[in-house]
Amino acid sequence: MAVSSTIGRLGEFQLIARMTSGLAPSGDVLLGPGDDAAVVRAPDQRVVASMDLLVEGRHFRRDWSSAHDVGRKAAAQNFADIAAMGARPTVLLVGFAAPADLPASWADGFTAGLRAECAAAGGTVAGGDVVGADTVTIAVTALGDLEGRRPVRRDGARVGDLVAVTGHLGLSAAGQALLAAGIDGPPACTDEHRHPAPPYARGPQAADHGATAMLDVSDGLVQDLGHIAAASAVAIALTTESLRPEAALDDAVALLRGSGERRGAADFMLAGGEDHALAATFPPDAGLPPHWHPIGVVERGSGVLVDGEPAAVRGWDHFGQGPETTT
Amino acid sequence: MAVSSTIGRLGEFQLIARMTSGLAPSGDVLLGPGDDAAVVRAPDQRVVASMDLLVEGRHFRRDWSSAHDVGRKAAAQNFADIAAMGARPTVLLVGFAAPADLPASWADGFTAGLRAECAAAGGTVAGGDVVGADTVTIAVTALGDLEGRRPVRRDGARVGDLVAVTGHLGLSAAGQALLAAGIDGPPACTDEHRHPAPPYARGPQAADHGATAMLDVSDGLVQDLGHIAAASAVAIALTTESLRPEAALDDAVALLRGSGERRGAADFMLAGGEDHALAATFPPDAGLPPHWHPIGVVERGSGVLVDGEPAAVRGWDHFGQGPETTT
Repeated sequence: MAVSSTIGRLGEFQLIARMTSGLAPSGDVLLGPGDDAAVVRAPDQRVVASMDLLVEGRHFRRDWSSAHDVGRKAAAQNFADIAAMGARPTVLLVGFAAPADLPASWADGFTAGLRAECAAAGGTVAGGDVVGADTVTIAVTALGDLEGRRPVRRDGARVGDLVAVTGHLGLSAAGQALLAAGIDGPPACTDEHRHPAPPYARGPQAADHGATAMLDVSDGLVQDLGHIAAASAVAIALTTESLRPEAALDDAVALLRGSGERRGAADFMLAGGEDHALAATFPPDAGLPPHWHPIGVVERGSGVLVDGEPAAVRGWDHFGQGPETTT
Repeated sequence: MAVSSTIGRLGEFQLIARMTSGLAPSGDVLLGPGDDAAVVRAPDQRVVASMDLLVEGRHFRRDWSSAHDVGRKAAAQNFADIAAMGARPTVLLVGFAAPADLPASWADGFTAGLRAECAAAGGTVAGGDVVGADTVTIAVTALGDLEGRRPVRRDGARVGDLVAVTGHLGLSAAGQALLAAGIDGPPACTDEHRHPAPPYARGPQAADHGATAMLDVSDGLVQDLGHIAAASAVAIALTTESLRPEAALDDAVALLRGSGERRGAADFMLAGGEDHALAATFPPDAGLPPHWHPIGVVERGSGVLVDGEPAAVRGWDHFGQGPETTT
């Protein structure tokens, strides 16, 4: 196959063959790609299921991210949702819409990225769909197995619980700002934007530790914790002092300052988006599991407080109008 | 809410609220929309899962199909894949990508169509995603429960089996041709194109009756039976005499003749596409279940024969280049 080939020249069936051949075997998949539907083991008698769409120009740019990165990110953000329920990621279904003139090498890179992130999360690809479209658009459904655990929802936080996070906060948004400004900044930031590395195993770990509420931080920490506050009818009180920015974030902020960026490390951590860290609430008496660190407490009231002040929610509205104050 | 509102004006969270409020309760859904992921019952300890993408201008046109029709079609084609495995449809996850200026009424109509088809199939919507995009693009994942049945794959057809179909063949493609030609033809055809009505219950019924192979006829009968022939390493021999076109199809063909259309009823039935009928093979000694009718037999050899001649596969390549001879 010529490297310069396009997916239109390959045709649907050859493209599907390339995207599905040599998939890693998985004990979770009883019937993989190639039939009307996949058959996946669900030993728990419950299946956890989540779907995300990624649209070129909105969720990724082909000039900022490689096909491999987009594949990794597509898998990562969906498996992070599974982990945030306390479940083990099992499989992905992947819908791939693309123009006929897309280089076949881009599809190959995307497929390799998906598989790399599947390997990191312990899952595999069980099926999907390939269609033509003017814009590269990727739909991913992730499934997971609770292994007997109670699913950790958003509505279980109780007054007095500790609020804690695990994973990288702020790096992805700072990385995006660096890329937008054309600044060659810390790879820890730009890499995190191109392919987040969610702490998958810490979702089930938190569930086992008694987490009362949990979610994947995807739209900005304050906005996402606002969902826990609203669903649980509590207030979440954070302190900026507890946020402890990573060194790479401090470095990125210093570099961005020169290009007129006014956001500081705490801003990126509180409202950045696309972190794919996990945030959860835990009963105060049991301490926190390893790799989780405390950022606040659950109080009576409503909304999210930062250093005692109600936080304006500056997260993402997904119709492309950027960060938006919704309250 | 003003009728003239757009989804951009509603914003992501209000749009999600409109798309998810008042969903019919379902015994299959343990946790519905609003958390990181849905939790769905899988009593069989296996889950059947399928995904399709629908792209505006490729799979539907807003001037030919109402939002309600697109919603019905999106649900139908996915639940048909579940039924074709011999499983009972349970839930959908629905990804909805659309421009901010899409009328909110279109999103409402789409949601209503999804729910109408869910009611027909016995499923419900358990989750999804809403994002911005330049083109309306819909991703649907359907899940289903095998209820203890062996999944009916494509690779089980045996020499001597009967080949049979149930559902409407050719009507959808004839309906599309009528719409393209601007001819006011039989509603049975144009309606079938706008919202196919797959015979969901006949999938599990066929499995219980011992079907050896089965699939959803979506890309044209000959092309799809070619998948069974290839996977099962057999030939499938059809006779046009057995196809028995519905009266509405004969009427549509007569009307289309005047606009220069050269395809006859058998052409639409053999290569039309988007039928969402079911085709299956059955052991010859057990007869056929109700509502299935025989169209051929499984023989030694390869490929699909029509009246003894190898059939050129004229089905769909999904990169938008239309019907295409692939063999």
